[in-house]
Amino acid sequence: MTSSTTMPSGAPRIEINEVGPRDGLQIERALVPTEDKIALVDALSDCGFARIEVTSFTSPKAIPALADAQDVMRGIRRRPGVIYTALVPNVRGLERALEVGVQELNLVMSSSETHNRANLRMTREQSFAELSNILGVAATHGLPCNVSLSTAFGCPFDGDVPADDVLALARRLVDAGASGITLCDTTGMAYPSQVASLSADAQALLPGTPITIHLHNTRGMALANAVAAWQVGITRFDAAAGGLGGCPFAPGASGNVATEELVHMFACMGVETGVSLAPLLDVVRGLPSLVQREFSNPLLAAGPRLATHAPPAWLAERFPSA
Amino acid sequence: MTSSTTMPSGAPRIEINEVGPRDGLQIERALVPTEDKIALVDALSDCGFARIEVTSFTSPKAIPALADAQDVMRGIRRRPGVIYTALVPNVRGLERALEVGVQELNLVMSSSETHNRANLRMTREQSFAELSNILGVAATHGLPCNVSLSTAFGCPFDGDVPADDVLALARRLVDAGASGITLCDTTGMAYPSQVASLSADAQALLPGTPITIHLHNTRGMALANAVAAWQVGITRFDAAAGGLGGCPFAPGASGNVATEELVHMFACMGVETGVSLAPLLDVVRGLPSLVQREFSNPLLAAGPRLATHAPPAWLAERFPSA
Repeated sequence: MTSSTTMPSGAPRIEINEVGPRDGLQIERALVPTEDKIALVDALSDCGFARIEVTSFTSPKAIPALADAQDVMRGIRRRPGVIYTALVPNVRGLERALEVGVQELNLVMSSSETHNRANLRMTREQSFAELSNILGVAATHGLPCNVSLSTAFGCPFDGDVPADDVLALARRLVDAGASGITLCDTTGMAYPSQVASLSADAQALLPGTPITIHLHNTRGMALANAVAAWQVGITRFDAAAGGLGGCPFAPGASGNVATEELVHMFACMGVETGVSLAPLLDVVRGLPSLVQREFSNPLLAAGPRLATHAPPAWLAERFPSA
Repeated sequence: MTSSTTMPSGAPRIEINEVGPRDGLQIERALVPTEDKIALVDALSDCGFARIEVTSFTSPKAIPALADAQDVMRGIRRRPGVIYTALVPNVRGLERALEVGVQELNLVMSSSETHNRANLRMTREQSFAELSNILGVAATHGLPCNVSLSTAFGCPFDGDVPADDVLALARRLVDAGASGITLCDTTGMAYPSQVASLSADAQALLPGTPITIHLHNTRGMALANAVAAWQVGITRFDAAAGGLGGCPFAPGASGNVATEELVHMFACMGVETGVSLAPLLDVVRGLPSLVQREFSNPLLAAGPRLATHAPPAWLAERFPSA
């Protein structure tokens, strides 16, 4: 009776970049011990991620939580096939990253002027110049540099960000040497049709440049946005285990799209992520003690969709033929 | 620079059936006073819903929380254009509903055998016979009867439910007089490609019969599922303000798709729901005191996507030209 109706679908396989150790831990109040960070990355390495953003080589003064960036990078076990990346804000950070064998850098600036000033304390043009510097030095080392464009789908201060501004900035950064672009929904303002549109436009504008989508679940739309991006051909997604992370400028905001929810959804749809859900859920189960705060986790609470329950005990008595 | 790329899109206008007063309140521990229920429905009436499921004419012994069904129906203000529906489990309930002027009935049975037995304490065939009775009596009164098929996307006891079983049951119920069918993801097991497929198949099988999709956000996929259904032509959605509701047989499960998140997302996408977000958020703000428990509400916490924040105070000093 059933037809073979299917939804518009994307690639049969996607890649997930786990950003929890960096994007998640950087705003936690609890100072996570270095050995626990290393254990976290090692556990994530065994889950099957394409990439893990391990840490950030920012000034320890700016982000004390990640002051141990070099020790973490030195301490982790490098699993073959996994790319270990780190955020780098300037050439000094690049040098520190080089000393400990980071394989790929992630640079960051905002698509909107006010967010760039508030978050990075520079104008966008100053940030572009800084990033161009880093891209130049990284090129001499043959080091790939992805650039994450914050507030690509909206700015908590400026509101809507013109898609043309985002695309023009992406174009300039690729021309300056960026090996990939991540379109970031920093405060969860993206909605599905917008994600589809900007993703498609970025891919059309930058053929050959991998485009990654970075989503937050602030307004519940993270998974809907992920499907929308996938439907137009996006195959790379950032995500943070347990939905860690957030944005200091978006009060009340929840964090990144939860890796386990992204993995679970795509697995249900038959899309390969390479990530095994069971060990990932083990990692997620340990996060509250790692960051020393409770947070609800719907998928952990409910279990994967086919984790069925035993029927009520009275059922067998009431329906003896069952 | 931007192209006119858009995602596969559905209808420009959808309808929302607010089920919070029935599906939400029925499992709350707190006994909500009758006048508060009436005030809730009246406030929802002013939000612009197509339908509001007001209450349930089940035995007061089975669901004490809704024992005041007749008083609630008598007490509410009927706003022209809004259809006030109620759940009815048997002919006795139908008679009670008729006495107080319910405009449309919602009948319920499960797509899976074990859930039907656990939830309704009957086999599916017994339920089908009961529903056929009600449909027959309702027809003599010219009363439209929608049938909600629980566990249409999966059963917490039986696991996957064959789509053919769901469709065959829907077909039999329409033949028996059902005026509409709701496919219910009772415990949040649905995923986007499945929702698209079953929605499309149900529409193809039952042309002229309105198909409604009832989603839960148990595993974070509610909004993604809503978009998937909309993309294949579904225009009717159940939702509960504040994401109230759940399923007693799915421990740890979160509730229905939150009406405010559904309205917000479709509004962002330019799809008309008829529902105004601001008064709806006022209703949602009052829910914790109504049901006497705290629950987090992401959209209330973060605000609608364009509810921008003032930049940090130090910004003007640091960038005097700003």
